[in-house]
Amino acid sequence: MRSPEILERLEQLRRAAPLVQNITNFVVMNSTANTLLALGASPAMVHGSDEVEDFQAIAAALVVNIGTLSSDWVAGMRLAALAAGRLGKPWVLDPVGVGATRYRTRVAADLLALRPSVLRGNASEILALAGGEAPKGVDSRHGVEAAEGAARQISSRYGIIVAATGAVDLVTDGTRIARIHGGHPMMGRVTGLGCSASATVGAFLGATPGDAFGATVAALAVFGAAGKAAAERSPGPGSLQVNLLDDLHRCDLAMLEAHARVAEEA
Amino acid sequence: MRSPEILERLEQLRRAAPLVQNITNFVVMNSTANTLLALGASPAMVHGSDEVEDFQAIAAALVVNIGTLSSDWVAGMRLAALAAGRLGKPWVLDPVGVGATRYRTRVAADLLALRPSVLRGNASEILALAGGEAPKGVDSRHGVEAAEGAARQISSRYGIIVAATGAVDLVTDGTRIARIHGGHPMMGRVTGLGCSASATVGAFLGATPGDAFGATVAALAVFGAAGKAAAERSPGPGSLQVNLLDDLHRCDLAMLEAHARVAEEA
Amino acid sequence: MRSPEILERLEQLRRAAPLVQNITNFVVMNSTANTLLALGASPAMVHGSDEVEDFQAIAAALVVNIGTLSSDWVAGMRLAALAAGRLGKPWVLDPVGVGATRYRTRVAADLLALRPSVLRGNASEILALAGGEAPKGVDSRHGVEAAEGAARQISSRYGIIVAATGAVDLVTDGTRIARIHGGHPMMGRVTGLGCSASATVGAFLGATPGDAFGATVAALAVFGAAGKAAAERSPGPGSLQVNLLDDLHRCDLAMLEAHARVAEEA
Repeated sequence: MRSPEILERLEQLRRAAPLVQNITNFVVMNSTANTLLALGASPAMVHGSDEVEDFQAIAAALVVNIGTLSSDWVAGMRLAALAAGRLGKPWVLDPVGVGATRYRTRVAADLLALRPSVLRGNASEILALAGGEAPKGVDSRHGVEAAEGAARQISSRYGIIVAATGAVDLVTDGTRIARIHGGHPMMGRVTGLGCSASATVGAFLGATPGDAFGATVAALAVFGAAGKAAAERSPGPGSLQVNLLDDLHRCDLAMLEAHARVAEEA
Repeated sequence: MRSPEILERLEQLRRAAPLVQNITNFVVMNSTANTLLALGASPAMVHGSDEVEDFQAIAAALVVNIGTLSSDWVAGMRLAALAAGRLGKPWVLDPVGVGATRYRTRVAADLLALRPSVLRGNASEILALAGGEAPKGVDSRHGVEAAEGAARQISSRYGIIVAATGAVDLVTDGTRIARIHGGHPMMGRVTGLGCSASATVGAFLGATPGDAFGATVAALAVFGAAGKAAAERSPGPGSLQVNLLDDLHRCDLAMLEAHARVAEEA
Repeated sequence: MRSPEILERLEQLRRAAPLVQNITNFVVMNSTANTLLALGASPAMVHGSDEVEDFQAIAAALVVNIGTLSSDWVAGMRLAALAAGRLGKPWVLDPVGVGATRYRTRVAADLLALRPSVLRGNASEILALAGGEAPKGVDSRHGVEAAEGAARQISSRYGIIVAATGAVDLVTDGTRIARIHGGHPMMGRVTGLGCSASATVGAFLGATPGDAFGATVAALAVFGAAGKAAAERSPGPGSLQVNLLDDLHRCDLAMLEAHARVAEEA
């Protein structure tokens, strides 16, 4: 996918301003909502079992992120994911820290079985979901290339898009593979940028629900371009968190051309 | 209300440093606490049913915000609002997203029936509370002028101050109306600035509990002036969130004169 | 402790990248995780009773912060603290707002009885835990010097390190006392910097678990130096929150020499 197409998808998102429902963790609620607003989407954080289904009916997409788990939140996640399935709404699963505890692994596997449109995780998380080694906490200790087989396997088994993000992001639908070059090592020193990437995928899915593969690739290209642009002018991770929002807000063709590149394989 | 009076009220707040109890949503906990600290107030986020009443006894004001709802939190909100009523403490209700789901609408109506000192929402929320059309998610799709009748109606029915905020804010006690010109369109791209405005009203109420109308007008004028000053030097919404706190902290007569204007009607 | 030793401990932390489990409040989840990442640690916010014990098994340290209390979270805090004790992992207790309500005081006392490695609070909190006067909300109204006796008393009674932070921080093991000069008054206008200081102590404990006193002193010196460096170039508290993360990330000998000083008494 070339920069003009990525930009066209971003402009489609800005015009559509999709309402994205997020059931996400306490750490990233603010930064995720701000990421979605900076992109031009309309975020809503709604998690309670009393209303998640009602809300999904008016939303364009759903993002489920298991970062800070507890049983009442898992109930809301399941209800929302089931509603998205019934209503034909696209949804993203972000299995934060899967493999770190038995509970977390079971919850992530149960949600994956509900067949999200897109699964996005770091390499360790994708490996753990495919039955591999547990990650250390919530940070990846594997490179994305190590997760390629696991990503293809999960994609084929569930018939979903799988995105493993890291130094180079990988997106697969089981057959095709796209690699997105962008981002910056300092992004690992800001909390929740993986969660923000998942939410960005959700926003693109909400704007073009018919093409989950293309939406995921475009989302990660935009996020990677803005991340790299922001990091290059940031003296540290505090500035980067702020500058990233500014750069998502003003992302244009020049930024995409300069800071992201997508390579696709059949 | 003219700028010197607004400033005098702000300085009164800074001297009093009122303790403001917030039961608010997960998205804005950090930004709300920082807003209150930047203003010179002392924030506390206390929501548990085991302690909200005890805490209200030492607080100067209460802010209840229904952004991320669940039944256990609603229990705490009710207990705290009832305690504020019993103790004669001023409190603000922010009915985030009312109308989006039946649950949310019922919770907001129940809290409104407890008669907050001030109800602050966007135009869609005020319309929804008066029985109008549901908003799209948590962002307003109506201009403030469309909510003037609804604001007057709610104000008269419950005997409370109603503030509908947007491009121009409107404050009414059912008879008087004040319009506050300030703010900036980019503020809509930062999450939770409506929630911060509600907390700002809470802080001014805590400092001058005897004059809820004046406190609300002054609060929104200060918030709008700082928001406009901050937006004009911000390249995007990430910077704006940061600069707004700096500008609330250093708000002075020059900032108020340059960036806010209040027009009152009898 | 002199600056080269403080730096050596910081570099040890950066090499070890300890996984720090935090059960903390909603206000500071994001800023705490970012503080730990800026320091070079690996943060994880895991609070659910279903997994806190499993997670503690893979963590290097635990931080328990009672800022936004409710009974289900207290259950997770107790389980995690007990697991840390069983596994010999160091842990920090931050008794936010103890004394403000009876519930909060009881919860804090119960957790203190589980003997954290380090108790860190502001002066009012330390006084309240020793049976003194209640603080106003969550902000201290006492200077650190007023809490010296209380700090020594708690330290001796439980055999733990006690740190009372303020304009000058005090760390004691009941016998030795270290005073850390650093920080800046504007830090009181940013929410949760006390919580960030506690998390910083947790990270240093995770890197050098055998020396809780030294780890605590070094942690507060680094935090105070970065805070002072950041405040001196910040026009307000919004900038300070951002700049502090940048300065923790790049803290070096020059910053420590210029902005922190530790004085020890036998």
